[in-house]
Amino acid sequence: STSSDLIRATLFPGDGIGPEIAESVKQVFNAAEVPIEWEEHFVGTEVDPRTQSYLTWESLESVRRNKVGLKGPMATPIGKGHRSLNLTLRKELNLYANVRPCYSLPGYKTRYDDVNLVTIRENTEGEYSGLEHQVVRGVVESLKIITRQASLRVAEYAFYYAKTHGRERVSAVHKANIMQKTDGLFLKCCREVAEKYPEIKYEEVVIDNCCMMLVKNPTLFDVLVMPNLYGDIISDLCAGLIGGLGLTPSLNIGEGGIALAEAVHGSAPDIAGKNLANPTALLLSAVSMLHHLDLNEKADKIQDAVLKTIAEGKYRTGDLGGKSTTSEFTKAIIDHL
Amino acid sequence: STSSDLIRATLFPGDGIGPEIAESVKQVFNAAEVPIEWEEHFVGTEVDPRTQSYLTWESLESVRRNKVGLKGPMATPIGKGHRSLNLTLRKELNLYANVRPCYSLPGYKTRYDDVNLVTIRENTEGEYSGLEHQVVRGVVESLKIITRQASLRVAEYAFYYAKTHGRERVSAVHKANIMQKTDGLFLKCCREVAEKYPEIKYEEVVIDNCCMMLVKNPTLFDVLVMPNLYGDIISDLCAGLIGGLGLTPSLNIGEGGIALAEAVHGSAPDIAGKNLANPTALLLSAVSMLHHLDLNEKADKIQDAVLKTIAEGKYRTGDLGGKSTTSEFTKAIIDHL
Ligand SMILES: CC(C)[C@H](C(=O)O)[C@@H](O)C(=O)O
Ligand SMILES: CC(C)[C@H](C(=O)O)[C@@H](O)C(=O)O
Repeated sequence: STSSDLIRATLFPGDGIGPEIAESVKQVFNAAEVPIEWEEHFVGTEVDPRTQSYLTWESLESVRRNKVGLKGPMATPIGKGHRSLNLTLRKELNLYANVRPCYSLPGYKTRYDDVNLVTIRENTEGEYSGLEHQVVRGVVESLKIITRQASLRVAEYAFYYAKTHGRERVSAVHKANIMQKTDGLFLKCCREVAEKYPEIKYEEVVIDNCCMMLVKNPTLFDVLVMPNLYGDIISDLCAGLIGGLGLTPSLNIGEGGIALAEAVHGSAPDIAGKNLANPTALLLSAVSMLHHLDLNEKADKIQDAVLKTIAEGKYRTGDLGGKSTTSEFTKAIIDHL
Repeated sequence: STSSDLIRATLFPGDGIGPEIAESVKQVFNAAEVPIEWEEHFVGTEVDPRTQSYLTWESLESVRRNKVGLKGPMATPIGKGHRSLNLTLRKELNLYANVRPCYSLPGYKTRYDDVNLVTIRENTEGEYSGLEHQVVRGVVESLKIITRQASLRVAEYAFYYAKTHGRERVSAVHKANIMQKTDGLFLKCCREVAEKYPEIKYEEVVIDNCCMMLVKNPTLFDVLVMPNLYGDIISDLCAGLIGGLGLTPSLNIGEGGIALAEAVHGSAPDIAGKNLANPTALLLSAVSMLHHLDLNEKADKIQDAVLKTIAEGKYRTGDLGGKSTTSEFTKAIIDHL
């Protein structure tokens, strides 16, 4: 195939272990003959020596132009004076929905063996408004913002996702018994959208109760949709049920058809550069990206190879209790293609 | 003993199953000869026919005078126009710290068998400020308020609790990478208090990561202290690890030495009045109250009897997979005293 048949996708390897796990994705994609050409850009917590920048305009334009991309982890230093790059990307690219499928991996044992749910997180507002100030000495406030526009679009996406992925039920997670106006508006929007999807069951569950039910019996849920902070919390909780953020894919959906897949684990500076990182989350995120591009056959092939490698257990990275290097694990996946 | 030797304690049986489980506590306390005289007051979601009130001044005064009390569940109707009674009590009595010990019950199997931690929740501010408004049509905001005063006093309580209960570590749960000012102030206060307790280890953990770690390995934590909403979420998550809110005690600490123990589960209107409710959470909350009063021998005796009854498994209520009525379960506990 000539390069004109290739789909261009942006790649931000990110910080720490990012470049190593991105390399793993590139190798697996090559071996699987995925018709994607990567447009690689530096985005990271240390300035790029070539551009003297954390994040260049060209990097953002690349995603806007290609409409599809993959990003590795980016560190969020606390109080370093510049805004988190993760948040900047969400804001600049208007990534309004964060989609995280979460399912038990065959052969990788945790306390739960029957998890199969998807969290859909509003990704732009709520407690993440960035609006905070000191009222008087010793009294500070943060603003939680909920808008009809952002709530409707994430609810629309959740029901659309449920319908197109054969899911039966959408549960809206909230705390409207306390935040009647903000979470109340979020629920109102979900209800409006639910009416347009009579074939999808709709229910509402209070966040504290939802967390209790998730740890008792995660099979009670199917698709969960929620405001930003609850999504942050619940998606990590769900990842924990099946083994952690090293195993769960994530896809951000933006206005104008943009999709940016992302590994949501940390940049693991302690093991960076040592060929020890687990590329699973980034690989499965790349698989989400392929599904988004309707390259379903390639997506399934790669996902199967990743899951088989983990299930077999012969080649596993340290975080999964194994002794393999990133390259050995990657090679095992390629052998399973 | 004459009635002058008795300690007076306020009792709010509450809504739904409240009166039945309160009856169970009264019977067990009688049988164990606990030197407590109950001062019972109606507080509930339906007005009291005698006083035409949900909550009388006398009820509040009773707790203020006795400084110790026990409350059953009170429903929080969404959008019924009057504020949640649970919140009203917290506010009126200045119940600033909510303490929830959470430990695996011997013989009651869940996915986790090694849980032993305590959550200490700031109980008066944060997202629970009640301050919300519409900015323009379709845009609403809630204020999250964090104050130095409330953060310091809950942090003080957490370290004091750790020290007096032989706990080794306090973890402050936050999202200061996003809410640098509000959660940042909370952390600053925790750090200040931590310095006064060099014998207690202190650490900080981001809420999303905390939830992931809790479901993966709850033994990583000892005492957790956090702002209001995180406490609401995490305490329920922890309850889920050991079987649910029907099994976990809770004690609210207020200014001026007030302690109000409370069952935090719902009022279960569906089974109310049917002699089917599980009184465990209220009984164990009453045990916390006894510890607070330094009636440790009685407290241990009752706790042992409750745990033995559950462990034996012969008499269990429906929520625990058994077939016993509330009265049969209560009688079994009394037989174990
Ligand atoms: C790193 C942090 C800013 C981020 C968030 O809070 O959203 C992370 O937890 C996530 O879920 O992507
Ligand atoms: C009922 C509700 C208002 C309450 C809360 O949110 O605090 C409950 O969840 C609790 O934990 O006591």
